Amino acid sequence: MKRRNFFKNGIMATVGLSVLGSRPILAKPEQYKGEKAKNIIFLVSDGMSTGTLNMTDILTRQKLGKVSNWISLYESGKVRRSLMDTASANSFVTDSAAAGSSWGCGHRVNNGSLNIGANGENFEPILQKFKSEGKAVGFVTSVQVTHATPASFCVNQSSRNAMPMIAEDYLKLGFDVMMGGGREFFDPAKRPDGKNLFSEFTNRGFQVVNNKEEMLSANRGKPLLGVFTDDGLPYAIDRENDPNLKKSIPSLAEMTKKAIDLLSQNKKGFVMQVEGGKVDWAAHGNDASAILYDQIDFDDAVGVAMDFALKDKNTLIIITSDHGNANPGMFNPGVKNVHFESLFESKASNQWILQQVKTNTSVSQLIELVDHYQNVALEKEEANVLLKNFTINDDGLYNPDKLPMEMFGKILSKHNAVSWAHSNHSADYVELAAYGPGSDAIGGFVKNYELHNFMLEAAGIARDKFAQLQEV
Amino acid sequence: MKRRNFFKNGIMATVGLSVLGSRPILAKPEQYKGEKAKNIIFLVSDGMSTGTLNMTDILTRQKLGKVSNWISLYESGKVRRSLMDTASANSFVTDSAAAGSSWGCGHRVNNGSLNIGANGENFEPILQKFKSEGKAVGFVTSVQVTHATPASFCVNQSSRNAMPMIAEDYLKLGFDVMMGGGREFFDPAKRPDGKNLFSEFTNRGFQVVNNKEEMLSANRGKPLLGVFTDDGLPYAIDRENDPNLKKSIPSLAEMTKKAIDLLSQNKKGFVMQVEGGKVDWAAHGNDASAILYDQIDFDDAVGVAMDFALKDKNTLIIITSDHGNANPGMFNPGVKNVHFESLFESKASNQWILQQVKTNTSVSQLIELVDHYQNVALEKEEANVLLKNFTINDDGLYNPDKLPMEMFGKILSKHNAVSWAHSNHSADYVELAAYGPGSDAIGGFVKNYELHNFMLEAAGIARDKFAQLQEV
Repeated sequence: MKRRNFFKNGIMATVGLSVLGSRPILAKPEQYKGEKAKNIIFLVSDGMSTGTLNMTDILTRQKLGKVSNWISLYESGKVRRSLMDTASANSFVTDSAAAGSSWGCGHRVNNGSLNIGANGENFEPILQKFKSEGKAVGFVTSVQVTHATPASFCVNQSSRNAMPMIAEDYLKLGFDVMMGGGREFFDPAKRPDGKNLFSEFTNRGFQVVNNKEEMLSANRGKPLLGVFTDDGLPYAIDRENDPNLKKSIPSLAEMTKKAIDLLSQNKKGFVMQVEGGKVDWAAHGNDASAILYDQIDFDDAVGVAMDFALKDKNTLIIITSDHGNANPGMFNPGVKNVHFESLFESKASNQWILQQVKTNTSVSQLIELVDHYQNVALEKEEANVLLKNFTINDDGLYNPDKLPMEMFGKILSKHNAVSWAHSNHSADYVELAAYGPGSDAIGGFVKNYELHNFMLEAAGIARDKFAQLQEV
Repeated sequence: MKRRNFFKNGIMATVGLSVLGSRPILAKPEQYKGEKAKNIIFLVSDGMSTGTLNMTDILTRQKLGKVSNWISLYESGKVRRSLMDTASANSFVTDSAAAGSSWGCGHRVNNGSLNIGANGENFEPILQKFKSEGKAVGFVTSVQVTHATPASFCVNQSSRNAMPMIAEDYLKLGFDVMMGGGREFFDPAKRPDGKNLFSEFTNRGFQVVNNKEEMLSANRGKPLLGVFTDDGLPYAIDRENDPNLKKSIPSLAEMTKKAIDLLSQNKKGFVMQVEGGKVDWAAHGNDASAILYDQIDFDDAVGVAMDFALKDKNTLIIITSDHGNANPGMFNPGVKNVHFESLFESKASNQWILQQVKTNTSVSQLIELVDHYQNVALEKEEANVLLKNFTINDDGLYNPDKLPMEMFGKILSKHNAVSWAHSNHSADYVELAAYGPGSDAIGGFVKNYELHNFMLEAAGIARDKFAQLQEV
């Protein structure tokens, strides 16, 4: 099989793993410099069911001949591993706002809320707490900077949908680094109130950057707002296969590296969140090509964070997800796994492919498109059914918000071996890995809201005694 | 919500957990008597995707007000936790024969094979090795005693389907305890060759028992063959709700307790496998009521094994699965989780319900049946579609082998919030917990075949130097 040099960040060399041959089964955790963490990097692969993690590891091993960074941390024994209950205050199945808030404020809140309790309480978000302690704070994400997961560490809002207001909250908060998508919430032409938030950020002393090149050349010493697209960033697989996107849009690992470089200048340390937000979007879309390569994109950011932490020895790393989504798995991979291995050569997300379909696209053209970009031969009937399930706007174009994503995912299951239980969040307990000072305090099983005090205590800050108490 | 006293085994008291209030986050593992394990109990929930484990834990917490035994071991920090790659020699997705063989002989073999290598090699199965060392050996299972997973610790067969021959292999092997279903492979009226294997086992000095009462009164000092049903045992939920079945068929925990009592008489120790085999069957059948209560049945056996190990201090416990299956999850549980909570009051498996349907069953009768036994109100159209998808035998009865299980599972998803990605095995990495002497040697991530030497070394027996080497 072909092994491409695609997505190359990794921590194998740093961690000292040998890919072939024996592994250090009982490697002891590194000695850290102090008992308390100066820095915290909290990495979230949003909506990552267990199958997403392990299919990505299988793909990484078999296609690239290396172990994913996340799983290599389990292999080397360098991290504490935990399983996390992800429920919200009003459901066994959380949304990202409530899940992030549980970490952000130490309370389970109702789905849709950002650090607002069921009785309207405003709980102070964790990055505000850390900023008060003098630490630099920030986040990077592959979705809008105003989206639920980054916002859950920053603001109080009764609805996650208040993204124009969240952008204004960020202006007031003046955090040190914020990068991702979501231009529409800053751009005067697109905001409902016509405000030019980019100018306002600049007036507040921010460096505002709009593409990768500007980001890479941003200076230390000034806070940074990087907003690279109107909506979420493109899927990693689409970015890597489009020279223009690859030039203008940074990967999660590139944003993470830049953010660490800026934030780590603060002598009192820093706390940041890194969100692989489009893993969740790909799960909602039952999009196998998108999810696997966005999980690799996230895993590359894990590599960057671990590289820093291994050298720094003062940094607590937390790697987890906020909830399961769609519970994908690999089923019936075919003789010599040929169905699953079609994904090794995939060059586009399902979404990108469906976006290429016009009202005059023929069955044979669709078959050719899928074959060219995903190495899969659709049957005529499958292509025909798919074409019939596009909905057309008044302008005669296909409705981009109603692309037949689930149907395409279901059709592709037979060809690429990835099947999905649903297109929404699950109540799954999720994986959690912790490395660095304070990591020993994590139990083998945790409730999501317990991470709030876990982070405060790891950094030597008094725990929030009003945070939620343990329940069954 | 009603909390029933249904399935009551548990290890909470023994492990010293408090259900409410704080938990011992950093509990140190117990000191064991020696460095080597005298006994090994290997517990397999067959075909257990992560969602199966965590939905069962949620049900156990919310319905019974206690933590499942498996998850409580994570909470208390008493076990080493690992993630296991489950591939076979010829596929990323294993069957139970190849998965069990990887543990049984230390090699990945092709799907369908029992300890026979790709080039026809006969690898010595692990219970034969342990028997040669003077240990008592055996297994209990909720499927046929001749089924792939127990057989994978015992015999060499190029096909798992050779169950009549496997029953004869068992006669020659003379292991100490074997219990489960599969009467058809011992009964002269049902065996293709007309042999009476029950008589032959008796002639070889075995106690042969056919129901729970006989099992409970079996004596120490003689080997025991217990075969309780023709096929697999009934689902736990169907057994618990049928007084006759409950009287005649032991639970997995009851078989485990009896087996430990008999095997532990051996002064050189014992090695046994405990298989929750019908978790896998329930996943194949997309049967939510069946899978959750069979996973509890398995979890009760975990409790029995841990109770013994905590007192004995000489026993290595391994708790795991051989592969994922169907990747179920809880999705859209409804306001106050009412959909998922319908399963708290379920009194029958989907399979049992479909078996009650006759050719003259009406739509309203089917609706009443499902409502009565599963606390779910099917819509008329759903019941109608379901009835239309029964296939009828030549004798005019519904075909019991072709019940519309997947369709029923899919219809119920909306009502009980459990959805399924497939009805077959997945490539998922699976959970593994290890407790007791030798458990420290397990890494955070293992390949299935590595467990073979892990068990030998834990027991102080020379590792198999011909076992499979590490690969990427």
